Amino acid sequence: MIEDLSRSQQEILDAAAECFMKMGPDVASIDDIAGLLGSTKGRVYHHFRSKGELLYAVRLRSVSLLMERVSPIAAQDIPPLEKLRAMSFAHVLRILKFLSYHRVVSEDTRMFFRGSAKPHEKEMIEQIIEMRRSYENLYRAVLTEGIEAGVFANQSVSITLHSIIILMNGPCFWYSPRPEQTDKDVEEIARSVSDLVLRAVVADPAVLETA
Amino acid sequence: MIEDLSRSQQEILDAAAECFMKMGPDVASIDDIAGLLGSTKGRVYHHFRSKGELLYAVRLRSVSLLMERVSPIAAQDIPPLEKLRAMSFAHVLRILKFLSYHRVVSEDTRMFFRGSAKPHEKEMIEQIIEMRRSYENLYRAVLTEGIEAGVFANQSVSITLHSIIILMNGPCFWYSPRPEQTDKDVEEIARSVSDLVLRAVVADPAVLETA
Repeated sequence: MIEDLSRSQQEILDAAAECFMKMGPDVASIDDIAGLLGSTKGRVYHHFRSKGELLYAVRLRSVSLLMERVSPIAAQDIPPLEKLRAMSFAHVLRILKFLSYHRVVSEDTRMFFRGSAKPHEKEMIEQIIEMRRSYENLYRAVLTEGIEAGVFANQSVSITLHSIIILMNGPCFWYSPRPEQTDKDVEEIARSVSDLVLRAVVADPAVLETA
Repeated sequence: MIEDLSRSQQEILDAAAECFMKMGPDVASIDDIAGLLGSTKGRVYHHFRSKGELLYAVRLRSVSLLMERVSPIAAQDIPPLEKLRAMSFAHVLRILKFLSYHRVVSEDTRMFFRGSAKPHEKEMIEQIIEMRRSYENLYRAVLTEGIEAGVFANQSVSITLHSIIILMNGPCFWYSPRPEQTDKDVEEIARSVSDLVLRAVVADPAVLETA
């Protein structure tokens, strides 16, 4: 599930995600992407055969960027509270650092629901939705565990799950990075959002202060 | 800010919102909208001169649907906890009942940020963003009041505000109405989301149980 991309491929995808986000996937061209990279179209085509392939790779990487950080945490043998804290912090941090990837993806899920995706796109998007489902299951597991342990409030797992994912993806919609922003500032935001997730979920927020 | 629409205009807008959501605003035509209404194009044109005008009216109505319910609650002289509970419940209920309006709007904000809106669209979208800002200010006020009173946890108002709006709009993304669904079921969902908002915000959730 976690891809193995060369540094050069990653750079190309970063530029592609940036162009797709800014211009929209319909308008952005391989020319624009090469232009942003300051390189030739040849370099792009060496790794990706078409814009469609780039768009697919951007979508795939948006989920695997989350998966590669969060899934090792989910596998750790630690109590649900600490686990959810670490998972949600890592998730939001990734959203903030790879904003363009996630912005592109939040758009095409909608296209999919609207049924306006072309057949070959549909297959790709279904595959990515499948990956996202396994990602969500990491959260479902820790929520269920926490509710059973009585640390998390006894709420509908499915509504809570949807809601915390939306909450963690929230910065996609409202965050715009400032040039003078440090890593510390970004971590601060991630911690604030992650705190909101934990508050929404725990039975008693007193445990958050002592933890 | 709250419009005065005839029943017939509302019906047309309901059908337009449905078509824009399902087919996308680019693809949906006045023909499709009239078809869904089971009426003539003439009836649509009697009220709205173009598809652009319909799209604008749908966007406008999505905010005023929220405003007309939430703003009287915001104006009441009640403690911040009860106020936020009533506001968030009313908001989510409106999202659930007028899903198509809100889905259409969540799409074009993005188009705006991408700068791909045409100049005359830009003006309309700016106006709607302005309305949405006054809507958000209702929440900013109650959050600030609650934090000052010590009932709400002392968190960043701006991150909390963004986050609870996203949380309340969440059903736009994950909710799909079932045919057998009752008003009670919908209220149940609204209450669950509103509870998550309150939990994320209050200093001590014990007050939620006693309230």
